Amino acid sequence: MVLQRIFRTVTSRAKGHRDAMPLMPVCFVGAGPGDPDLLTIKALKALQEADVIIHDRLVSAGVLALAGHQARLVDVGKEGFGPSTPQAHIDALNVKYARQGLRVVRLKGGDCTIFGRLDEEIEALEEAGLPFHIVPGITAASAAVAGIGQSLTRRGRNASARIITGHDMKGFADQDWRALAQHGEVTAIYMGKKAARFIQGRLLMHGAAPDTPVTVVENASRGDQRVLASTLADLPATLDAQALNGPALLLYGLAPRDVADHPVLAREVS
Amino acid sequence: MVLQRIFRTVTSRAKGHRDAMPLMPVCFVGAGPGDPDLLTIKALKALQEADVIIHDRLVSAGVLALAGHQARLVDVGKEGFGPSTPQAHIDALNVKYARQGLRVVRLKGGDCTIFGRLDEEIEALEEAGLPFHIVPGITAASAAVAGIGQSLTRRGRNASARIITGHDMKGFADQDWRALAQHGEVTAIYMGKKAARFIQGRLLMHGAAPDTPVTVVENASRGDQRVLASTLADLPATLDAQALNGPALLLYGLAPRDVADHPVLAREVS
Repeated sequence: MVLQRIFRTVTSRAKGHRDAMPLMPVCFVGAGPGDPDLLTIKALKALQEADVIIHDRLVSAGVLALAGHQARLVDVGKEGFGPSTPQAHIDALNVKYARQGLRVVRLKGGDCTIFGRLDEEIEALEEAGLPFHIVPGITAASAAVAGIGQSLTRRGRNASARIITGHDMKGFADQDWRALAQHGEVTAIYMGKKAARFIQGRLLMHGAAPDTPVTVVENASRGDQRVLASTLADLPATLDAQALNGPALLLYGLAPRDVADHPVLAREVS
Repeated sequence: MVLQRIFRTVTSRAKGHRDAMPLMPVCFVGAGPGDPDLLTIKALKALQEADVIIHDRLVSAGVLALAGHQARLVDVGKEGFGPSTPQAHIDALNVKYARQGLRVVRLKGGDCTIFGRLDEEIEALEEAGLPFHIVPGITAASAAVAGIGQSLTRRGRNASARIITGHDMKGFADQDWRALAQHGEVTAIYMGKKAARFIQGRLLMHGAAPDTPVTVVENASRGDQRVLASTLADLPATLDAQALNGPALLLYGLAPRDVADHPVLAREVS
């Protein structure tokens, strides 16, 4: 397979017939929340077959270790608030490597269809006439609720759940606060650490109960996962009291299933 | 490992000391949307090590084929509107097998924390003093948006996305229709086929634009996946015109990335 691919690349370059060679689709792959065992089998196969893996900084070392030995790893360092590679440069990298006939994996933390800026990259490929493919991943919200022994939805409590971001292009993201403030709402808040005080203020202003549970899950699914049980009233103090360096998800409307009351909650299968 | 487990079971049974044996946690596993390659590695390991796999009818044959040869498969046939095993019976099965010291996998379609009635089963285990563990899975919404080349969220379009169910305990599920009817909302609707006309009526009544795109994805991720591009106005007619026998997800607010305009959209990686 690899031989065949190299052969094709060489042939097409030699003859200058790039169009004659079916280019490999750029594969957008969700890396999941961090635990390498939460990769999908499809993602694992893509990592093992890739020639180039263009990855965000949030992708864990354990996941990157599963790449095939032939794969070149390119860190494009996208991370909230830190130094990052400009989006246009990432778009150009995807195009450059795909045009070389290489198997390109664009590896994004979590599920690439959720707050992953996937569309910008797809559009750059489309403009270049290049094919793509999307492999969904486990998003942080799924891992976080599993980590606290809860569901995102529950019969009799909520027939809907929401995912929101604390930040968008304009700064703190505006949301339908009135709807979110209603009793029984469950919302997974991505990138909510720095926006926590803003979110708290908006929700209280729109009538949310101060004792609404909010659970902070840092490094969901990883060995260093931390769970902080709080309330809407106490959220800023909870966050101020801890140095949270890893990615954190806020679960608004959910408390951890009480480990004190239910000591049988198993954290890990052996 | 298996020997050790059998030894423990036999010893404890022989001595009548069930409490002396650490019971295996019941493992709630998300089976993903159907493509066996969209199982997580962790789910695959759980299936291969299980003594008993208690599964819903929606779990695909390809996924069940990955079970270890020692595993006993128990079909509890939960399926919308069809004959099904009463919830209390499923709860009792989990408890019965776990008490026997067996490795029990409770396998649910998609992600078990989303519309999976997980809490009822967890509470039955807690009452019995039995441990549990949750392995998240790829939910249908993630697979469906990937299948139409879109994201659930997109910078500049929506800073939030929602998952809702068409049905709850009382019949057609009530939702915050006013919020959902707003321009730019993106919502993944589970179990929405039979409720489609109800949902359409509520949304139009609350001011949603009739030309809001709605995409129906049947059998997301499976070989027989079908994508029907429609609009809020045409949704009932679109559904009436097709015999949809598989699980279908409605993506409200999203149209497929246009394959006609962009023939390079790759459906599959090789």
